[in-house]
Amino acid sequence: MVKTDIIRFSTSGTGDIKNLTDKIADIINNSEINNGTVTIFAPGSTTGITTIEYEPGLKVDFPEIMEKLIPSDIEYKHDQTWHDGNGFSHLRSALVGVDITVPIVDSSMTLGTWQQIIFIEFDNRSRERHIVVQIMGE
Amino acid sequence: MVKTDIIRFSTSGTGDIKNLTDKIADIINNSEINNGTVTIFAPGSTTGITTIEYEPGLKVDFPEIMEKLIPSDIEYKHDQTWHDGNGFSHLRSALVGVDITVPIVDSSMTLGTWQQIIFIEFDNRSRERHIVVQIMGE
Amino acid sequence: MVKTDIIRFSTSGTGDIKNLTDKIADIINNSEINNGTVTIFAPGSTTGITTIEYEPGLKVDFPEIMEKLIPSDIEYKHDQTWHDGNGFSHLRSALVGVDITVPIVDSSMTLGTWQQIIFIEFDNRSRERHIVVQIMGE
Repeated sequence: MVKTDIIRFSTSGTGDIKNLTDKIADIINNSEINNGTVTIFAPGSTTGITTIEYEPGLKVDFPEIMEKLIPSDIEYKHDQTWHDGNGFSHLRSALVGVDITVPIVDSSMTLGTWQQIIFIEFDNRSRERHIVVQIMGE
Repeated sequence: MVKTDIIRFSTSGTGDIKNLTDKIADIINNSEINNGTVTIFAPGSTTGITTIEYEPGLKVDFPEIMEKLIPSDIEYKHDQTWHDGNGFSHLRSALVGVDITVPIVDSSMTLGTWQQIIFIEFDNRSRERHIVVQIMGE
Repeated sequence: MVKTDIIRFSTSGTGDIKNLTDKIADIINNSEINNGTVTIFAPGSTTGITTIEYEPGLKVDFPEIMEKLIPSDIEYKHDQTWHDGNGFSHLRSALVGVDITVPIVDSSMTLGTWQQIIFIEFDNRSRERHIVVQIMGE
């Protein structure tokens, strides 16, 4: 059995983090799938999906470490192609990844106590985003 | 068909790497699933799941490169929230990721010859860990 | 229902990027699976699978940022084990990851407009590679 749903939201630009956990849990609860997997996927080349403890400190720390690893203020070849200044956004997306698959056991995701599934905006401007939530199982 | 199992172990703290490959292969062999996928997921926000060649050199190199990328000796905002000094652990987990999905073909994972599935401890102290192994297929 | 296929190609060495998107879409179209997931997995410990906008600028930028993050010109302990000089290749693979799972809806992957699924060679020489494409669904 396969069930697909979409989560929609707006972002404010680079480093904006959205906690998707409760909405994904709702989608699972509203499905008839009790055991299997949920795949969360971000369509878009300047986005990230991962897990983190969603608390105010890390909401600052995670964007800051991404800025240190892949700076936004140096020139990338990508910017010569499109002149939109978001080469760093694409590189951060390729490094962090845009998908996660989480086991479902007895209708719940097997997350840790302090572990949330988050979307992080890497683009350099506000965007309308949609996330695909695909549940598969029995 | 869906089958779930758990692998349990203790870790010694930051950089401790466990090779999970044989235990996952055993779980697959004991299931009645011959073709499909296995999802390995670490519940916890200071952990990592990935693949690497599990040999003594890389067991030193991988923690060292993580220390270079996300140093443990600088202050993160996370530490102002909880004062447990493991902001770097959370950031490493968000970057490396906590899940992997591997195809199963004829009851075997399609791993490369030198490729092992590993857990890496990012927390700054010893922990009791459990990993969820979810097999789905036919 | 589960369907497995293989994509084969040669690479020219470190930083060679292959766009796998069209070949994966063909495999999905030739299957009888309309809704579910596709898992793309690279067997090998010196490889990467991720998404990026496949355009000439980023084909230079992505290898360059990997060189900055995990330099090829410093010595790793791995090289003391095997003396093949590719410690950096293994570390890049462990960081970027070797798998991605993408939802399939109405026989199409839910990719963004500018988002391609790519293989990146991290090894320090040309290699023959094969990628496993596993489709599961209904």
